Amino acid sequence: MPGTHSAKDIHQEIICSTPPACSSRAAAFTELQPLMANPDPPTERDDSPVDKDPEQPGPRNQQRARACFLKGLSYFSGDMKVFGKWMERQFFLLQLLDWVLRGAAQVMFVNNPLSGLIIFAGLILQNYWWALNGFVGTLFATISALILQQNRGAIASGLYGYNGILVGLLMAVFSDKGDWYWWLMLPNIFLSMMCPIVSSALASINSRWDLPVFTLPFNILVCLHIVATGHYNHYFPQVLIQPRTELPNITWADIDVSRLFMSVPVGVGQVYGCDNPWTGGIFIISLFISSPITCAHAVLGSAVGMVSGLALAAPFGDIYFGLWGYNCVLACIAIGGMFYALTWQVHLLAIACAFFCAYLGSAIANIMSTFGLPSCTWPFCLSALTFLLLTTGISRIYKLPLAKVTYPEKNLRYYWKLKKQEKIQMADKERMESEEEQKHVKEEMMVNEKDQLRQKLERLEEQRSAGEASDDKDEETRVKSHPPAVKLLGTEDVRHSDLTEVTVADSV
Amino acid sequence: MPGTHSAKDIHQEIICSTPPACSSRAAAFTELQPLMANPDPPTERDDSPVDKDPEQPGPRNQQRARACFLKGLSYFSGDMKVFGKWMERQFFLLQLLDWVLRGAAQVMFVNNPLSGLIIFAGLILQNYWWALNGFVGTLFATISALILQQNRGAIASGLYGYNGILVGLLMAVFSDKGDWYWWLMLPNIFLSMMCPIVSSALASINSRWDLPVFTLPFNILVCLHIVATGHYNHYFPQVLIQPRTELPNITWADIDVSRLFMSVPVGVGQVYGCDNPWTGGIFIISLFISSPITCAHAVLGSAVGMVSGLALAAPFGDIYFGLWGYNCVLACIAIGGMFYALTWQVHLLAIACAFFCAYLGSAIANIMSTFGLPSCTWPFCLSALTFLLLTTGISRIYKLPLAKVTYPEKNLRYYWKLKKQEKIQMADKERMESEEEQKHVKEEMMVNEKDQLRQKLERLEEQRSAGEASDDKDEETRVKSHPPAVKLLGTEDVRHSDLTEVTVADSV
Amino acid sequence: MPGTHSAKDIHQEIICSTPPACSSRAAAFTELQPLMANPDPPTERDDSPVDKDPEQPGPRNQQRARACFLKGLSYFSGDMKVFGKWMERQFFLLQLLDWVLRGAAQVMFVNNPLSGLIIFAGLILQNYWWALNGFVGTLFATISALILQQNRGAIASGLYGYNGILVGLLMAVFSDKGDWYWWLMLPNIFLSMMCPIVSSALASINSRWDLPVFTLPFNILVCLHIVATGHYNHYFPQVLIQPRTELPNITWADIDVSRLFMSVPVGVGQVYGCDNPWTGGIFIISLFISSPITCAHAVLGSAVGMVSGLALAAPFGDIYFGLWGYNCVLACIAIGGMFYALTWQVHLLAIACAFFCAYLGSAIANIMSTFGLPSCTWPFCLSALTFLLLTTGISRIYKLPLAKVTYPEKNLRYYWKLKKQEKIQMADKERMESEEEQKHVKEEMMVNEKDQLRQKLERLEEQRSAGEASDDKDEETRVKSHPPAVKLLGTEDVRHSDLTEVTVADSV
Repeated sequence: MPGTHSAKDIHQEIICSTPPACSSRAAAFTELQPLMANPDPPTERDDSPVDKDPEQPGPRNQQRARACFLKGLSYFSGDMKVFGKWMERQFFLLQLLDWVLRGAAQVMFVNNPLSGLIIFAGLILQNYWWALNGFVGTLFATISALILQQNRGAIASGLYGYNGILVGLLMAVFSDKGDWYWWLMLPNIFLSMMCPIVSSALASINSRWDLPVFTLPFNILVCLHIVATGHYNHYFPQVLIQPRTELPNITWADIDVSRLFMSVPVGVGQVYGCDNPWTGGIFIISLFISSPITCAHAVLGSAVGMVSGLALAAPFGDIYFGLWGYNCVLACIAIGGMFYALTWQVHLLAIACAFFCAYLGSAIANIMSTFGLPSCTWPFCLSALTFLLLTTGISRIYKLPLAKVTYPEKNLRYYWKLKKQEKIQMADKERMESEEEQKHVKEEMMVNEKDQLRQKLERLEEQRSAGEASDDKDEETRVKSHPPAVKLLGTEDVRHSDLTEVTVADSV
Repeated sequence: MPGTHSAKDIHQEIICSTPPACSSRAAAFTELQPLMANPDPPTERDDSPVDKDPEQPGPRNQQRARACFLKGLSYFSGDMKVFGKWMERQFFLLQLLDWVLRGAAQVMFVNNPLSGLIIFAGLILQNYWWALNGFVGTLFATISALILQQNRGAIASGLYGYNGILVGLLMAVFSDKGDWYWWLMLPNIFLSMMCPIVSSALASINSRWDLPVFTLPFNILVCLHIVATGHYNHYFPQVLIQPRTELPNITWADIDVSRLFMSVPVGVGQVYGCDNPWTGGIFIISLFISSPITCAHAVLGSAVGMVSGLALAAPFGDIYFGLWGYNCVLACIAIGGMFYALTWQVHLLAIACAFFCAYLGSAIANIMSTFGLPSCTWPFCLSALTFLLLTTGISRIYKLPLAKVTYPEKNLRYYWKLKKQEKIQMADKERMESEEEQKHVKEEMMVNEKDQLRQKLERLEEQRSAGEASDDKDEETRVKSHPPAVKLLGTEDVRHSDLTEVTVADSV
Repeated sequence: MPGTHSAKDIHQEIICSTPPACSSRAAAFTELQPLMANPDPPTERDDSPVDKDPEQPGPRNQQRARACFLKGLSYFSGDMKVFGKWMERQFFLLQLLDWVLRGAAQVMFVNNPLSGLIIFAGLILQNYWWALNGFVGTLFATISALILQQNRGAIASGLYGYNGILVGLLMAVFSDKGDWYWWLMLPNIFLSMMCPIVSSALASINSRWDLPVFTLPFNILVCLHIVATGHYNHYFPQVLIQPRTELPNITWADIDVSRLFMSVPVGVGQVYGCDNPWTGGIFIISLFISSPITCAHAVLGSAVGMVSGLALAAPFGDIYFGLWGYNCVLACIAIGGMFYALTWQVHLLAIACAFFCAYLGSAIANIMSTFGLPSCTWPFCLSALTFLLLTTGISRIYKLPLAKVTYPEKNLRYYWKLKKQEKIQMADKERMESEEEQKHVKEEMMVNEKDQLRQKLERLEEQRSAGEASDDKDEETRVKSHPPAVKLLGTEDVRHSDLTEVTVADSV
């Protein structure tokens, strides 16, 4: 959910849309300009060696094959820009399906319909009814955004759908009436349609700090529904959640290591409220397809959450169930490469954020259980917003402008390009300065030559007019007396004045 | 409570102060200017046909009578600007009374002392002690604002009083010591005097998004008082409010339709904490006097709240008691014409907001009951702020700048005027462009003529100087050689250069 | 904790660093400039009579002695700028110690290492283990800020340490495992190191309104820790805090007046979670060393808190324990001279804020006890922020820009200087206007004289050239025809044109 892509950005970015293959070309292209201007070859180049040795035939075939492979890969990895572009010319219902699928994946910050499709597969594996509710939620949230004429680019990126899918799913998950209670569709549709309104309102506030809204609309609306109805409601009763007044004794001997390891994919699955480890595994695959960095941080986050749970003496059941993981998954993805450009410092920051998120998760779960509420993804939202608001003097921690956020790999390229541009600008500046100096030297020479020429001309005139009347001498002295006055005018006028002088001299 | 009227705005607005009668005149006046400039008559005119046929005597008398009636009406409807203007020259205590009455009505966004008087009558009908506390609260809130030298225009509009009346009233309503417990006056006065401070602080934040503070100061201060003292306090005990752990069974047969219908005025009355349907009815009348649109939306909001209560399986008692209505009343008024210009889209938005507000009301009531707190008007504030923060591409949903907010009818006229101005500007722009083109054509012709004239002049000169000495020929070539040098000057200098050329030529 | 001193400010302020002695000099210096320009002596002067009568030898010795005393005093009172400057050249660990000590004192808004040392002495008197935890917290918070490359000036002022000391202290105070439970160091270090991150994030938000972050990071992090672990945690159990369901009967006969008076220093001590009255007394002394105004407002705030507790029927035990005082202490210091320049109006505002803070304290304590949380310093933060957001038309309530906040005495001098500058500017403006008029008159005279001179010159030229050839007459007419063209140039060029004219005239 990379904030607000304006349609403009999307068009600009379409130029180098196919990530891995095109990257080298884009890099080569952006490097061409400085290469033309700057004779020194750049020392640090991150492009693949595709275009480097066009003479050697052997490697070239390999490179071609690799390029073809990468290009093929680019069609369904990253944010699938080419596919999105192609979709724009299709039937409206197909487009809507694309947006819904992208919306489903945007929960994990992935703007990829294929990932969305796989995620829906995972949801179906978990529970048909939940998957249906999730689909309805995404669909109506997207439709509501269309009705309210929100930014078309943002809708097409699924940025208005991801809150809808979470609202739909979690309302089904926390409903105490069990599956296939069709009346639930009513509040589901109503609250899904409220999503774009709450998103838009929160964006008005968060945009002042260039922050995304994350899953805050989902958190607000689902908590609203659960607390408005509660466990004892006759129409829409909720699962009973009560504050813990006692914690079970923890004996390290009881620990089940295999279930502990299983809690990592379960933690990923719990982002969508799913406790099936296979579903979690499918979600991990769907992330890998779009962005390996996102996938790695998701797994890392889930592991950090598990460790935090153990450190804070949480009941093993909660850890196995992935409740300590899902917020950390999201926080780790958000900080680790999504909204910051991934460097080692940012990687450490992402781990710190995941630990903080786990702590916060425990705190918020305890507070919200007082009201019979689950903690939803509040901990993720609050910890990620805190870490995004951080200002630091470390230059290697670079927060991307919200309009430039796409997916970690592309963000990284953007960051590298920026760094390179800075270097080039620095070099350019130096070069400019040296050139400026040379120019000055040349100009002085020119001026001297000009002066000499003028003096020659004057001498010629003198010789020519030597035979004429004595009155003309006054005129000449006037011409000579001009320059000091002319110096006071602007540089543009100097040349012009020179010209007039010359004409005056001619006319004499 | 239309945010912050600066005194300046008030003076600007006084020009067309008397709403219904003056509207046609104001419209006619604003149309005069474009009519003078633009010969085409505007096709869409929304003014009444009063000034259209000044020849016909029959309808004119009718129109006069109608204008008189409307003018008379304007003296006590709308925001009673004329009365307010007249009040400025009166004795201070009378002014203060005017401000207090306006403050009482501003709870419903009505800036009208007559409505305020009627509202106080309704309060007295409900409970003498409550009315007294409300009056004291409004009075001291206004005095505190005067001491703190807040904006005089805002004070005169009652914008510092409405939180005071609610603080005073609700502290009396929730006090467990019963009526005529005089010690209550102490915290009442203290918290009323805190109102302008909290209002000012919140306005500093909300003004960044051009949002009003609504009844947030009241919510904060009353919740502060109730939770600071609580049910078990010895001096200021509060009514016991406890979270619901069980809901009564709902049997549709038990429903009392007459009480259900009665819940609509009761809901309006509950804005001031009154459960008497007659009081609610009086409040509805007071709204109608000032602004029929406000009145309609108040009733609509109350009805929406009642329906929401039924939909969410609320106990019938709560619905009859108006607890589901009062927040929706305020939310529906705020969105439906007060802060947005009323169009059909905005009307639908207001209904959506009322539903959302009812949902939110149930949620907040459940959460706050955990702390022994009533939900006050938090649901209204939060839902209305959310809907005011909404940004949409729909041009017919126009949020008024806070400084321009008055009352729905006038807001609507402002919006229409704006739309008309836009159209005129569009037309003007087109006209300007066509004129610009014509100008260009003319100028080119002028230039050509000039050139011809110059050439003639030159030819004349040539003829004249043909018989003179050969030295003059050099001079002539100079004149001819000038133009390229002159081209380097700006267009302004060209004319001037022409002049010098001519003088030079003359001096030859 | 005066917001964010940039290093620049600190360098600027170092010029007049030694408060009481140097103040007169600084004042004298700033007054010199206007004195030179303005012959009238300023009527209101707040400098000491040191420089007034340099002839009299008797008083001069006294003054010298007094100046010496004040200068000596300045070395360890105020913010000890000279010492801080000297520290910059010392060994890093010594510097770090300075920052840690300043951080300890910054809880009370005091930027003074000596106060910090005394405060640590008070903490040791209270409890060794708490003092150790406080020290570790401050140390790691400062180190974390260094790692995150936060503003060096802010770190050197202890602005990143004060949340750390509170986190460390209060985690030890609320731990249910008793003293010397070494595992507590782990969350202590983790949360202390989170302080600068949360501070930085909050500062990003609060800086939009030019507000400090106060102790919000501490509040957030300690509440986080307590609620995340809770009373029943196996590793880090917390002291059990439960909501009060009944209040003990209050009989005024039971009141212990001596303990009531003792509650004033205990209230000051409770800022650091200490209930020992001697520790509180030591804290009061440490405040007095740095800033008597701060000290006075601390005591006043604690007294107001006690009175509020009595007024709201709080159990006597809570009042004796200082729980009603510490928030008011901080609120009263913050408003009374620290962020507002101290005038009588501000003094009254500070008392109002202390009362409001006590009210708020009771409310927040009741709410947070539901979650087993102490109220920390939330009431202080919220009430002080509210009063700092207040906008008022009263000119004597002047909120200092955050970058200019130091300590009350210096803030006051800054305010006086500003007032004086305003007066001087006003006077200057008037003087400027009168001078401008005089200038105009003079210029007109000059122009007239110049014209006369030129005319004389021209007449001379005419007489000289009267005997020369008739061709020169053309030249003269050309010279005369120049002026109208020259008039079109800027005023600067006019003089230059005059010069050329003269040269032209000369060359003729």
